[in-house]
Amino acid sequence: MNNIPYKTYLTEDEMPKAWYNLRADMINKPAPLLNPGTLKPMTAEELAPVFCDELVKQELDDTTAYFDIPDEVFNFYKMYRPAPLVRAYCLEEKLKTPAKIFYKFEGNNTSGSHKLNSAIAQAYYAKKQGLKGVTTETGAGQWGTALSMACSYMDLDCKVYMVKVSYEQKPFRREVMRTYGASVTPSPSMSTEVGKKILEAHPGTTGSLGCAISEAVEVATTTEGYRYVLGSVLNQVLLHQSIIGLETEAALNKYGIKPDIVIGCAGGGSNLGGLIAPFMRDKIKGIHDARIIAVEPSSCPSLTRGKYAYDFCDTGMVCPLAKMYTLGSNYIPAPNHAGGLRYHGMSSTLSQLYDDGLMEAVSVPQTKVFEAAEMFARIEGILPAPESSHAIKVAIDEALKCKETGEEKTIVFGLTGTGYFDMYAYEAFHDKTMEDYIPTDAEIAASLASLPNV
Amino acid sequence: MNNIPYKTYLTEDEMPKAWYNLRADMINKPAPLLNPGTLKPMTAEELAPVFCDELVKQELDDTTAYFDIPDEVFNFYKMYRPAPLVRAYCLEEKLKTPAKIFYKFEGNNTSGSHKLNSAIAQAYYAKKQGLKGVTTETGAGQWGTALSMACSYMDLDCKVYMVKVSYEQKPFRREVMRTYGASVTPSPSMSTEVGKKILEAHPGTTGSLGCAISEAVEVATTTEGYRYVLGSVLNQVLLHQSIIGLETEAALNKYGIKPDIVIGCAGGGSNLGGLIAPFMRDKIKGIHDARIIAVEPSSCPSLTRGKYAYDFCDTGMVCPLAKMYTLGSNYIPAPNHAGGLRYHGMSSTLSQLYDDGLMEAVSVPQTKVFEAAEMFARIEGILPAPESSHAIKVAIDEALKCKETGEEKTIVFGLTGTGYFDMYAYEAFHDKTMEDYIPTDAEIAASLASLPNV
Repeated sequence: MNNIPYKTYLTEDEMPKAWYNLRADMINKPAPLLNPGTLKPMTAEELAPVFCDELVKQELDDTTAYFDIPDEVFNFYKMYRPAPLVRAYCLEEKLKTPAKIFYKFEGNNTSGSHKLNSAIAQAYYAKKQGLKGVTTETGAGQWGTALSMACSYMDLDCKVYMVKVSYEQKPFRREVMRTYGASVTPSPSMSTEVGKKILEAHPGTTGSLGCAISEAVEVATTTEGYRYVLGSVLNQVLLHQSIIGLETEAALNKYGIKPDIVIGCAGGGSNLGGLIAPFMRDKIKGIHDARIIAVEPSSCPSLTRGKYAYDFCDTGMVCPLAKMYTLGSNYIPAPNHAGGLRYHGMSSTLSQLYDDGLMEAVSVPQTKVFEAAEMFARIEGILPAPESSHAIKVAIDEALKCKETGEEKTIVFGLTGTGYFDMYAYEAFHDKTMEDYIPTDAEIAASLASLPNV
Repeated sequence: MNNIPYKTYLTEDEMPKAWYNLRADMINKPAPLLNPGTLKPMTAEELAPVFCDELVKQELDDTTAYFDIPDEVFNFYKMYRPAPLVRAYCLEEKLKTPAKIFYKFEGNNTSGSHKLNSAIAQAYYAKKQGLKGVTTETGAGQWGTALSMACSYMDLDCKVYMVKVSYEQKPFRREVMRTYGASVTPSPSMSTEVGKKILEAHPGTTGSLGCAISEAVEVATTTEGYRYVLGSVLNQVLLHQSIIGLETEAALNKYGIKPDIVIGCAGGGSNLGGLIAPFMRDKIKGIHDARIIAVEPSSCPSLTRGKYAYDFCDTGMVCPLAKMYTLGSNYIPAPNHAGGLRYHGMSSTLSQLYDDGLMEAVSVPQTKVFEAAEMFARIEGILPAPESSHAIKVAIDEALKCKETGEEKTIVFGLTGTGYFDMYAYEAFHDKTMEDYIPTDAEIAASLASLPNV
């Protein structure tokens, strides 16, 4: 393991040419989406008004292992990929750990996160189908920014419903989307039926992802030439995000390394599902048995404290039902600063893997996360996003365990993005006004009472 | 020129191991700094209370062509370098130009700009000398952020005087510096004698770089164990920034390319001086004759409308005199958004090269700069800093000239940083509240009347 550079960049020729569909290799397949009316699996026909055709195919296909990356998407990838696999030499030295720490850094692009990997794919298929535009929701803003960039490149209209609290707290995020030509509406809004209903029921609400999803879906399904796109949770998103894991695997292969532990933050599961894909494949196939750890915030602990059940994906209950670890679709997480990890459920694929015991999960409180974030920023020179810092926290914990045991484990974690637009959160941390929100059992039980009877 | 990838990264082994000192190859050397009292060239002894010893040596040495990069600095460089040389395929296609456009992207680090290249070198030498800390000024905030990161890594105290208008407009920049443990004071402040004097004379002033320099120098020279560091203008800074040009040259050499035009934005000259160093060397030595273009804002046109004369480097007139193209040390540029290009003078080295006819200069108004910036963001996927966008604007202009003439010129420009902390500026551009400020001849003449009688 000597002579590994700080940063490993694949060449363009070495970049993966196909996405990997982990579902194809899963023994227990993720449960299908259900039609909320009939409670039967959603068909391609039923999904067609919501998603564009090629993406419906990808969503439903759990047998094809590889999907070729279209040339146009690959060309876009070349603008900001390959992402570096970084050997965290400085962090190792600071921690005095025998562990070898690597992180896959997805923040070197203007969206500031991995979200661009799926945004460009979804925009491409929408354009190919001759659509006029797409609608979506965004919480922290990374997904909205990524989609704006992708739509600008593909010359598609882009309507973003942004969770109201983020819209107000992050005017700069909004302005970046505007730079890329997107229209941004704070959600809930009076521009949709579902938005009006939610505002009537909860006049002062600052919104939630589930609610913004409902609005975006309504606009997509009622506007000619539009479809809805989503930045996480869905199978198609995990498919596109497999580029993260495949690049990581290819870079590690250069040094003949198989990781002992793979760690990713988990909101809806887009980054985690992508990062772990090839390592989970090796685990399932008995080729190499890495520990795989999902890290979620204590304030929104869907895997660690939620229930594995069919639930609505959105607050307005207009979407199909998904079987997932969930806190209930009307769960409103406390206002923690990791906006990207505030979704009430977890991707069906990851939920199934977790239920099968193939993946671990831990939850961490945000003050501990920001301690790790600041330490990492100072040592490794990268200012991490609050979301990504969840993985940093647990990577450091695992490296310190190695220090105690003397084990030279190889730890790989996903550094999904940068925190340049999260300085309010860092300010709260510095000013010690940041609090840790941990829901009570009663609160979670109350929210879970809304689960549909499936 | 086929098969050039979008991004060329040198390997760690290919990274330059020494900085290049362009002064060693200049026929007409830049004029020396003068002691404002005696009007004689500053000696090493006179500079020692201000700068640390090794940097004084670098500042005064105009004969040594290469300085080895210390191992500690090189290790830090490896955390965020090499910076990619990007072939702007998408921009070329959009412009339908036969020109080949490359840019050296220095924004892939948390400081968001090239400033880190010199910050780490200066922090290293300060630490090596056993100092407790350093003081500095910052305008837009890139330099202050970079120095905070470098000091955090070297375990040095860091006191930043931030131009008051930026301090207020960019709370997030401030917060990033705080994350790295720096103390940040809005300038002018009541914490220094010179600050008090300036506030007395101009009670409502929002500050200037020249004024923040005066404060930082005062604190450094009156505090035990502290020295002053500067992010631009100085010879030592241009020396460290030569890493930009050397990496660019090494990357182009892989494809056997010599650039026809090299373009950089010019404030104090740190990026431009670094980017052009090896190309100017080839030009001076008659090896290859590239056009070299400095781009400055119309609101602060030191090269294009200033005078080549000895002037004060700071408003408080506590610093040595430098011979440079200047608008006068009490020139207060209109509030344009390229905070990094608001210095009244230009590095002595670049001033001499310009005076010798080895370099061209153009000035551009900010609305045109932001048009280019937004276009670039949409096409190339990188949200550029306002400063960097000055170079983009002229690169596009030159590429369009090639389109008219059919010439397949190779254009290289410096993309010094990202605009994530400049969204107020983008907002003003979108809202069409942005104005172009162009000083009148009378205004410049009035400011030049303050030139010292040397």
